[in-house]
Amino acid sequence: MEIPVIRDVLEESNERARENRTVFDRYGVFVANIMSSPGSGKTTILQKTIPVLRENGLACAIIEGDITSTLDSEKLKPLGVPIVQANTEPFGGDCYVGPHLVQAALRYLDLASIHILFIENIGNLVCPAEFYLGEDCKVVVLSLAEGEDKPLKYPLMFRECHLCLLNKMDLAPYLDIDLNVFESNIQKINSQLKVIMVSAKTGFGFLAWIEWLLEQSKTRNSTAR
Amino acid sequence: MEIPVIRDVLEESNERARENRTVFDRYGVFVANIMSSPGSGKTTILQKTIPVLRENGLACAIIEGDITSTLDSEKLKPLGVPIVQANTEPFGGDCYVGPHLVQAALRYLDLASIHILFIENIGNLVCPAEFYLGEDCKVVVLSLAEGEDKPLKYPLMFRECHLCLLNKMDLAPYLDIDLNVFESNIQKINSQLKVIMVSAKTGFGFLAWIEWLLEQSKTRNSTAR
Repeated sequence: MEIPVIRDVLEESNERARENRTVFDRYGVFVANIMSSPGSGKTTILQKTIPVLRENGLACAIIEGDITSTLDSEKLKPLGVPIVQANTEPFGGDCYVGPHLVQAALRYLDLASIHILFIENIGNLVCPAEFYLGEDCKVVVLSLAEGEDKPLKYPLMFRECHLCLLNKMDLAPYLDIDLNVFESNIQKINSQLKVIMVSAKTGFGFLAWIEWLLEQSKTRNSTAR
Repeated sequence: MEIPVIRDVLEESNERARENRTVFDRYGVFVANIMSSPGSGKTTILQKTIPVLRENGLACAIIEGDITSTLDSEKLKPLGVPIVQANTEPFGGDCYVGPHLVQAALRYLDLASIHILFIENIGNLVCPAEFYLGEDCKVVVLSLAEGEDKPLKYPLMFRECHLCLLNKMDLAPYLDIDLNVFESNIQKINSQLKVIMVSAKTGFGFLAWIEWLLEQSKTRNSTAR
């Protein structure tokens, strides 16, 4: 009699992610996993980014991760791109978007007509960093208002990501923040992590961010494990 | 032969919490569990609150929850109160302070000489809300910079808490925020949740917050389940 073995949960999760990766490769879709604390500006960044990508001939879609509610999807609806709301509440209220949820969301997207897929993860600087979804790149958005010490306190997120968007730069004059300390704390955790300072409110830094994204989507360095 | 049954994880957790509660009751310690997103200002609030409580004859102590690092403890050290750093990394990198971690931390505190114990939870608006630690009250700190929609997107936190400190009020002139929407979103989720607007930077609203805390510590309405 063979004893059935329930495999390592993370291995199970990575298998789903690899299946997602295979699908993305088949259709040539570039996938960015956008992560941050609650209220760091992920949705506003997408609102400002997607029209520019469209002007550059790139069709986008969004998987919108939330525990509950469709608030962010409703904000993004006027963009006119395909959006799938992925709520984790029916999946146990998970505090991260897992690869199984992405897999479920993909059923609602016509990948053949999409160049760039954004996965807006749940606002959480901890657990989303632990899961590979099959994406090409991981981006962490950090609001200036959160303070310089976040990379040191949530190191896994900053270790896993390829880019850090330091957002809400418009607030810099009103915060007791040392930008050099911010950058050096990021570098302490991950010297390879590129940092771009932006303000989704004013558009500051968006040229550099979109150039980075276009460059990445061209080279398509998969993060497949 | 009796088959051993591993009980429900949450039941196990609540049993640890009730043990903590028994200890707090024995020594008459009032315990506040302070929760928020990363960088909402929990540590700064404690820095400004504890000296005022001391002036009112109340001895405080802190259990400082973090995944890793002792950064917040170092910031709080000049207060001269007992601090136990509770890192979750040896506990599996949990994204919340659990009652077992509080239990472990209590071994390092002389509760007989403490009136108010603050548990500064890990910066996370999701999972910390799920766990009863044995505390008397749960306080959520929300930074104005996080936006008005947070109560709707992270409802459990706002349902579980007794007080919401709306922090960083000093940034109000520089944010596109409608304070009425903020409050009405909180009320939609939990009409019983008291909201106090504060600025840990300027001290705005601290009189109301400390009065609330003193009132609570006198009545000691236990949240024991």
